[in-house]
Amino acid sequence: MTTSPPASTALLTDRYELTMVDAALADGTASRACVFEVFARRLPAGRRYGVVAGTGRLLEALEHFRFGDAELDWLREGEVVSGAMLDYLADYRFRGRISGYAEGELYFPGSPLLVVEAPFADGVLLETLVLSILNYDSAIAAAASRMTSAAGERPCLEMGSRRAHESAAVAAARAAVVAGFAGTSNLEAGRRYDLETIGTAAHAFTLLHDDERSAFVSQIASAGPGTTLLVDTYDVEQGVLTAVDAAGTALGAVRLDSGDLPTVAREVREQLDSLGATETKIVVSSDLDEYAIAALAVAPVDSYGVGTSVVTGSGAPTCGMVYKLVLREGSDGAMHAVAKASAGGKASVGGRKTAGRRIENGLATEEVVLLSPDADVPALGQVAEVDELRPLHVTFVADGELQPGWTGADGVRRAAQRHHESLAELPRAARRLSAGDPAIPTEIITV
Amino acid sequence: MTTSPPASTALLTDRYELTMVDAALADGTASRACVFEVFARRLPAGRRYGVVAGTGRLLEALEHFRFGDAELDWLREGEVVSGAMLDYLADYRFRGRISGYAEGELYFPGSPLLVVEAPFADGVLLETLVLSILNYDSAIAAAASRMTSAAGERPCLEMGSRRAHESAAVAAARAAVVAGFAGTSNLEAGRRYDLETIGTAAHAFTLLHDDERSAFVSQIASAGPGTTLLVDTYDVEQGVLTAVDAAGTALGAVRLDSGDLPTVAREVREQLDSLGATETKIVVSSDLDEYAIAALAVAPVDSYGVGTSVVTGSGAPTCGMVYKLVLREGSDGAMHAVAKASAGGKASVGGRKTAGRRIENGLATEEVVLLSPDADVPALGQVAEVDELRPLHVTFVADGELQPGWTGADGVRRAAQRHHESLAELPRAARRLSAGDPAIPTEIITV
Repeated sequence: MTTSPPASTALLTDRYELTMVDAALADGTASRACVFEVFARRLPAGRRYGVVAGTGRLLEALEHFRFGDAELDWLREGEVVSGAMLDYLADYRFRGRISGYAEGELYFPGSPLLVVEAPFADGVLLETLVLSILNYDSAIAAAASRMTSAAGERPCLEMGSRRAHESAAVAAARAAVVAGFAGTSNLEAGRRYDLETIGTAAHAFTLLHDDERSAFVSQIASAGPGTTLLVDTYDVEQGVLTAVDAAGTALGAVRLDSGDLPTVAREVREQLDSLGATETKIVVSSDLDEYAIAALAVAPVDSYGVGTSVVTGSGAPTCGMVYKLVLREGSDGAMHAVAKASAGGKASVGGRKTAGRRIENGLATEEVVLLSPDADVPALGQVAEVDELRPLHVTFVADGELQPGWTGADGVRRAAQRHHESLAELPRAARRLSAGDPAIPTEIITV
Repeated sequence: MTTSPPASTALLTDRYELTMVDAALADGTASRACVFEVFARRLPAGRRYGVVAGTGRLLEALEHFRFGDAELDWLREGEVVSGAMLDYLADYRFRGRISGYAEGELYFPGSPLLVVEAPFADGVLLETLVLSILNYDSAIAAAASRMTSAAGERPCLEMGSRRAHESAAVAAARAAVVAGFAGTSNLEAGRRYDLETIGTAAHAFTLLHDDERSAFVSQIASAGPGTTLLVDTYDVEQGVLTAVDAAGTALGAVRLDSGDLPTVAREVREQLDSLGATETKIVVSSDLDEYAIAALAVAPVDSYGVGTSVVTGSGAPTCGMVYKLVLREGSDGAMHAVAKASAGGKASVGGRKTAGRRIENGLATEEVVLLSPDADVPALGQVAEVDELRPLHVTFVADGELQPGWTGADGVRRAAQRHHESLAELPRAARRLSAGDPAIPTEIITV
């Protein structure tokens, strides 16, 4: 009995991915060499930057993207695809190449976030899974990044599991840590990615006991005086008094989960100090988002417990990233740039791309996307002042082989580091919470 | 190799659920008889009603809520809980009672949606899992219900997998069908819950081919002329011409995924009719939400493909349901109503509850919540005019035994039927999309 992800991720996809491949197998185009690209046409309204997250999870899911008997039987019985397609799926392993922005990296409209190179069939099958993971995880990381920016040196703790789908909650905890959160209440996320897990007690624990003191005494006996006591079940002032009386001045922290937090935090700080509990910290946790965190900047608060707003992307619960065919082999054997041409803001730019971030005097000034109209891979060396361009593309999978360092707990640590360093490069205005344009412009240069 | 959910759901929870039980085991309160209640303090701003969804998934997850070696080892190594607690967890089975609103039922602020009766330890451990599932699935169903209402007799098809966490996408498809959607693009949802799966082709399929005609000919050869051809990759008018030329007038449908849909749909309908393809249907699918669907009511459209907005709850991606201890045994052996008392809108109403919906002349007029201040289970017979009260509580788990009919594909069908019938009872104004108050008031009667 394990808590691993599903043994196969292959049916976590849209039906049309399979039926397209079925038709392409029959007409011979399934084996055409293709390049697919993931990008976002825009950031959520008013946001200054996006944060790539989920890449590690995607690479983990890719290892489990296999069609086993259970999947094939169901596809056969439902007559979803042909017998030839079932044979193809039974042998499916991704044997192509995946490169793109490192997890934790920032992005802007048009940034070529992920590049998948494979025969059409092998590449198109991954579309839905790639987008599900990147769109959700990146939405959480983008919101979390604004919160950790607003919190400054004070730690943010992710406590939103109950406001998200139970598996999404695990991904959300992970994405929040990529964007600077210090820990999570979610145990499965802790187990799977070696994250710091945190937790205090709920009002139910106090209500279970005959009185508040009994509950505090019990929690201290179990967890030691360094624990965090929830003091707002009945009356906050009395709760603080009881807490310090029960735990002594070595009490680790008190948690406030209701009321006007700036006011209550100030009163509680004064009370704790007057009781000699000057080292006892204050954790707040009531419907916080980046704006509420910013509003608490001058309040005597030591850490922020964030729930609903982080796991729902604080108003932007998905990213709108798309997965587009940008280059494919033709019947002439040559590679051709392709793009949807029609109306409604959905046109895309065909051709192969790479990207660099222009850094001047330590600050990012521009996202430079190099576009090659043909099969050649563009190189940053093709533009002037190449020393100012920080390369953004790294390799995740080569010839079907997962490259080391991007998955598991190591991947999360590396992504958090990447996020931290990339954010430090942005102009300070990028961290403003108010609505505005992307922090730096994206320039597309055809080489 | 299977695509089942994780074998254990036990760590999909918050750390404090375990540490609270640990302390309560040590002080003897873990075995106190308790009643927990799930409710929502309010609906998302402007919404007229909520839709309970996820109950079947919750009951399925409950069957897998077991602490196996993998979970216990990790808890032991991380020193999350004591040895006594590990022994308790190793034996954990839910042996209590769960009742509440049937899946698919509508709800209003304060409706007692789920009632969990069990010793404290057994009941509190379920909090996070219960809320994760109900909060997400109900958010999707509530949005989906507005969409199917706006669509009237025209089918809505769920296509949002790529805009949601990959496992949440499966739940979203299921919840959308509970609220009246006719099918989903998500294969795993189709497999797990016997849902109708649907799919056409993406722009990538057209772009893969040397020209649009080759793509259409290939798709027709594979799927028959009854397929749906995506006609907006290049030029819509030319696309429709090519589609009918390739498939004949028996062409099943064309899909439009961009442009000003009311205008384009009208032009395409006229063109199809003029080509003799009078039976060919039109599917539209570009960033639709309930408002866009309503705006297309007079356009010649046959079905709606809905993505982002349904899987993100159309502006309300979670429900804000809470899981509160409302009654517990005291040291005197008697049952006591309990409730958080402090400030900030987070106070709750202690005591045991049941609910009925008052139906007059076939229309719902009021949500009646009966509250018993002590251990007695209130009965609808305790209020006058009981014949007007449709009982809302059903039993899901009794003495730890799952009752039949609520899970799997049967559960989804039953929930969709319940949703359909409950919605038909609401006054017509409840289906208005504009912001307003809950469709019916909630009255709490202490008996």
